[in-house]
Amino acid sequence: MPAPSGDWVTPARLSGIEQELASVLRTSDDVLVFQAEAVALLEAVARSIARPGIPCLNLVSGPYGRGFGIWLEQFGAEVISLEVPYDSAVAANAVEEALTQRTDIEVVALVHAESVTGTSNPVREIGPIAHERGAVVVVDAVASIGGTPLETDEWALDINVGAPHKCLGGSPGVSFASVSERAWELVRGNPAAPRDSFLSLLDWKEHWLDSDRSSVPGTPNVAEMVSLAAALDRIRSEGLDHVIARHELVARALRAGIVGLGLEPWAAEESAAATCVTTLRIPRDVPEVDFRGRAALYGAEVASGHDEMAGSLRIDHMGAGAQPSEVLTQLAALGQALLDHGHTVDVGAGVQAAATVVAAG
Amino acid sequence: MPAPSGDWVTPARLSGIEQELASVLRTSDDVLVFQAEAVALLEAVARSIARPGIPCLNLVSGPYGRGFGIWLEQFGAEVISLEVPYDSAVAANAVEEALTQRTDIEVVALVHAESVTGTSNPVREIGPIAHERGAVVVVDAVASIGGTPLETDEWALDINVGAPHKCLGGSPGVSFASVSERAWELVRGNPAAPRDSFLSLLDWKEHWLDSDRSSVPGTPNVAEMVSLAAALDRIRSEGLDHVIARHELVARALRAGIVGLGLEPWAAEESAAATCVTTLRIPRDVPEVDFRGRAALYGAEVASGHDEMAGSLRIDHMGAGAQPSEVLTQLAALGQALLDHGHTVDVGAGVQAAATVVAAG
Amino acid sequence: MPAPSGDWVTPARLSGIEQELASVLRTSDDVLVFQAEAVALLEAVARSIARPGIPCLNLVSGPYGRGFGIWLEQFGAEVISLEVPYDSAVAANAVEEALTQRTDIEVVALVHAESVTGTSNPVREIGPIAHERGAVVVVDAVASIGGTPLETDEWALDINVGAPHKCLGGSPGVSFASVSERAWELVRGNPAAPRDSFLSLLDWKEHWLDSDRSSVPGTPNVAEMVSLAAALDRIRSEGLDHVIARHELVARALRAGIVGLGLEPWAAEESAAATCVTTLRIPRDVPEVDFRGRAALYGAEVASGHDEMAGSLRIDHMGAGAQPSEVLTQLAALGQALLDHGHTVDVGAGVQAAATVVAAG
Amino acid sequence: MPAPSGDWVTPARLSGIEQELASVLRTSDDVLVFQAEAVALLEAVARSIARPGIPCLNLVSGPYGRGFGIWLEQFGAEVISLEVPYDSAVAANAVEEALTQRTDIEVVALVHAESVTGTSNPVREIGPIAHERGAVVVVDAVASIGGTPLETDEWALDINVGAPHKCLGGSPGVSFASVSERAWELVRGNPAAPRDSFLSLLDWKEHWLDSDRSSVPGTPNVAEMVSLAAALDRIRSEGLDHVIARHELVARALRAGIVGLGLEPWAAEESAAATCVTTLRIPRDVPEVDFRGRAALYGAEVASGHDEMAGSLRIDHMGAGAQPSEVLTQLAALGQALLDHGHTVDVGAGVQAAATVVAAG
Repeated sequence: MPAPSGDWVTPARLSGIEQELASVLRTSDDVLVFQAEAVALLEAVARSIARPGIPCLNLVSGPYGRGFGIWLEQFGAEVISLEVPYDSAVAANAVEEALTQRTDIEVVALVHAESVTGTSNPVREIGPIAHERGAVVVVDAVASIGGTPLETDEWALDINVGAPHKCLGGSPGVSFASVSERAWELVRGNPAAPRDSFLSLLDWKEHWLDSDRSSVPGTPNVAEMVSLAAALDRIRSEGLDHVIARHELVARALRAGIVGLGLEPWAAEESAAATCVTTLRIPRDVPEVDFRGRAALYGAEVASGHDEMAGSLRIDHMGAGAQPSEVLTQLAALGQALLDHGHTVDVGAGVQAAATVVAAG
Repeated sequence: MPAPSGDWVTPARLSGIEQELASVLRTSDDVLVFQAEAVALLEAVARSIARPGIPCLNLVSGPYGRGFGIWLEQFGAEVISLEVPYDSAVAANAVEEALTQRTDIEVVALVHAESVTGTSNPVREIGPIAHERGAVVVVDAVASIGGTPLETDEWALDINVGAPHKCLGGSPGVSFASVSERAWELVRGNPAAPRDSFLSLLDWKEHWLDSDRSSVPGTPNVAEMVSLAAALDRIRSEGLDHVIARHELVARALRAGIVGLGLEPWAAEESAAATCVTTLRIPRDVPEVDFRGRAALYGAEVASGHDEMAGSLRIDHMGAGAQPSEVLTQLAALGQALLDHGHTVDVGAGVQAAATVVAAG
Repeated sequence: MPAPSGDWVTPARLSGIEQELASVLRTSDDVLVFQAEAVALLEAVARSIARPGIPCLNLVSGPYGRGFGIWLEQFGAEVISLEVPYDSAVAANAVEEALTQRTDIEVVALVHAESVTGTSNPVREIGPIAHERGAVVVVDAVASIGGTPLETDEWALDINVGAPHKCLGGSPGVSFASVSERAWELVRGNPAAPRDSFLSLLDWKEHWLDSDRSSVPGTPNVAEMVSLAAALDRIRSEGLDHVIARHELVARALRAGIVGLGLEPWAAEESAAATCVTTLRIPRDVPEVDFRGRAALYGAEVASGHDEMAGSLRIDHMGAGAQPSEVLTQLAALGQALLDHGHTVDVGAGVQAAATVVAAG
Repeated sequence: MPAPSGDWVTPARLSGIEQELASVLRTSDDVLVFQAEAVALLEAVARSIARPGIPCLNLVSGPYGRGFGIWLEQFGAEVISLEVPYDSAVAANAVEEALTQRTDIEVVALVHAESVTGTSNPVREIGPIAHERGAVVVVDAVASIGGTPLETDEWALDINVGAPHKCLGGSPGVSFASVSERAWELVRGNPAAPRDSFLSLLDWKEHWLDSDRSSVPGTPNVAEMVSLAAALDRIRSEGLDHVIARHELVARALRAGIVGLGLEPWAAEESAAATCVTTLRIPRDVPEVDFRGRAALYGAEVASGHDEMAGSLRIDHMGAGAQPSEVLTQLAALGQALLDHGHTVDVGAGVQAAATVVAAG
């Protein structure tokens, strides 16, 4: 009488999933699969590295970066914050400068793509700079992995936290991270790092990664693990490069279309734009709530920004939603909804500008 | 050791499906579920009614109507054909006239919606006329059921053949028909009606409809039956009226948008336009094959017409595909693809014309 | 607006399915996939070969063999029947003798495994004998394919009708057949062979098998085709030989257990026993209906025989149900149910006899 | 371009799931759904109640009870442990006595059913006793909910932690708890209770339970939530009482069969036996590993016990696996496997003893 338990997640299947994820993360480091959403894993990472008084450089270009800094402080770290407006990226040379001023910094934490602001930080440049100074580089890659290139080993990233439900096109109930040996050393040296806890990275390291792997610890989220395996199958079948290119093309075409409509993209420069979502400044005279309903009626799903993002609109294009063939829809619906509200936009020009990008491929 | 058989299709489930279909067909007549696609059921119907020499009036406004007439002739009927060009509907008074000229006609056969031409016949008017003259009215409702009103009892239709995979949003491997007592009498009087055959309506009548219903005859297409039940659940949950209204709105908006782009709808009059697909005349100078690829790149799925339909394009909008929120996509993609081929269309005007219809609801 | 149609069944997918089926049937002949249950395909085969007056030798060892003969007669063939009691197989030398007496016989039709009686005919021996005499050999392999070896080419079988829902572990809504060139010649020479019909093999031959295969004719049973492809994937993954061995082992163990319980298997000799179902003679004093309910309560699904099978019980073990690990259940439940009805059986001895076979593998 | 996010889990769906769970838990207290497996929720509960120095009475009759006590100590509580051998239940009067000796005890923690030992504690009696003394009663009901009666309100239980993947027949990636007002007061008074954390019950209380419920906090495990909703649908459809009765019947029949085989159940008394798993003492001379393989060959899934459970075997029967029709299989396979190893058991007698219980219903 087999119990309806997590039997699907055998040691062999879990190992296979780890290998697929390592391939997606482009790393030979440990990859751990965490049985809850990415926010919980980010908390576990923050708790694991934040020993009392440890100096950490935390980059802030959106709410996720800000939130990670708050955790680091709560858990006792000394946080040096490097902040830019939410429509910009943190420049690599600003990081270099900060590390020159404070040579004792042990951790550099940053978000690759901020899914609320639609902006992106230059992880490719920042990783090697921080690594060279001896810092452990911690990247929140939740909204970038699968949507933009991420080279964990080449860029010397020590911890990369990812999730299946953004650009990888999966479901959100599990998350994952790569952890370098340098990062494990830092965690092992932290007496406050969680132990005997759901949030313990070290438990997982000892009971699974460094064990004989005869059995999977705990009771996995089996439905989510099946979903993750399916998402990784689709990624492999399509090809990671193609998945990334698809996200990049959609982001580029949508940005061109927004300009074509006569509107203003949120991200100040294209190099600072994320590929998972596109944000734009909404014309001042347009009431937000009605606008969303009208756009939905025409086939576009847009979200209004709040707080620092007030006056912006966001269009998501992640995973299965990142289809070049959907770009014209979004623009036609967005443009028409603005027209209906009395705002002057040129729908035909927006569509045409995007089509030019899509057709060029 | 239970065999992986059709056990799902119990007598109670089959009876429940029949009742749901009767409700969709708006009838208290017998409803039979046939374990193959609708074309096979149409053949079974033609064989069942076509006793040698029986005079049948067959309406032709597209290839399905033409094909049914060919079957009737093959099986020995005398076929009187009432034909119109493929962009038009057969007028009710033309049927009345034909029945006046030949008062011995026993069957009037017609197609409600022709899914290749995108045209529709006025079944509502023709049914009562033919019924009054004593004819058995046979309707191919495959492409109309769920997309346009169909009142079997009120309009006095004797046989209505439908299928799940068009406007009902299901899968094609089963089909169904309502059969009136008048129709059963006609079939019973036909010595050539199939017996002991997969194509026998009478077998089904005797071994299932008029039996004690203790067991389902044959081995049902269980995967397709599960799919049919799911489709009927969705219909009931959304409401048949809402499903029909959705198809009508999409067809109306798309037609308006086509005119807005500066193109010409195929169906001569809006009253002759089907709600399951929309056809338009393609500008002469546009090469067909490239055009389809370009439209697909931008998110529109269009099919080129052949034979009588040469020079036309078809856009399907059936079942889950009949979404008002998809209309702007289709027009933007269609318009942009034509623009790319050097044809002058006004994408913005097309989008706006459709949006006006969609917004009016 | 993509219609929810049979788009899944592309020409490439259909060709792939045909190749998998050819591999299961062990043939390089044409393989056709028929969009309805096997009984409809058997009817189509009977209609296709039965030209008026054609002499056919029809083997009868159960109801399916008898039924095929009735069709052949209805469609005009001269049927020579070779019949044995329903607990026996037709001997190969009896076929040889019949073909010696009537050298003009053009068709030899037989059922490989009769799923009602649980008996099996020696197709391996009969095929070559009939082939040598120039006859077209037509085999109903519906209940044997996947459960017992079947070598279409090696055994010179001209038409083999199979289905996914018995030993192949699939769903019943499609069926398939291999057709040799000798068989196609016979069908082409039959003026009564169906044309322009759902039951036409020739239509399929011309519009698909011998065409440029640019599009799939008709509208496939897409849910059933997906299910068929999945079943073939599982077969390939497990290995056809292993699937067959599993059925054989279960049948052998169950038969041993029945003897161990002190009961009598139905099939007179083990060589005449099918591997898809096992039948046994029920002790006279046991009331049938209660017995079934009691066996079900304990975990065995048994069916009572009717007509020629009155006084028998049948246990199915096909596809996913053919598990050696299920044999002890069936015997324990069967034995205990008989005990409850006051019949003397030795449950422990039955279980032990079956276990010996299972453990030997 | 809708992102593949947790949109399925709307506030209305989450509220509906909570109501279903409240009905299963028989309570009008708050019910919270936790987005990770039950062990994580138990940790969250332990952290939430364990303020430094708080005196807690912890009942230990198996490893889950022991583990909860270790957490309470780690988080700073003073733990008074009430322990019995792992084949017995903690008696209600022992709890009463302990509470009389230490009248300052604020928490009584116990496990309802220990799924490793197959034993059960008398929560029905202990709850009211502890409640009357003013203690917060914390029950680990993970392995009992759905398999045995549990009356949260009637028995005065303050926190009940449950999970879908045991007797409720669901999937393990989410868990749930009822929390009484008395329990919330205790947690609010604990300055160490988690905040801004995945493990915070108070966050969930404030941001969801006591909020305007306009949006679901965090990103739910959507695949697991769909699975939970499906499990609750099945429970409601079958009826909770019937689900519980099914587990009880299976446990009773299996225990009778084990005695019938001549073996010894682990749980000292039937009243101390859980209904989710059944454990037995394995005859000394039987090698464990081979035994498991042989039992599996015959259709029984048994697990060997370790540590305190060394020398025992466990058979799970939870959720869909709790079928009276499976009991005879387990016994026949278990008995035959023991016979194969040279141990004397009476398979027939075991089967018959179980069948008597099953047939009595």
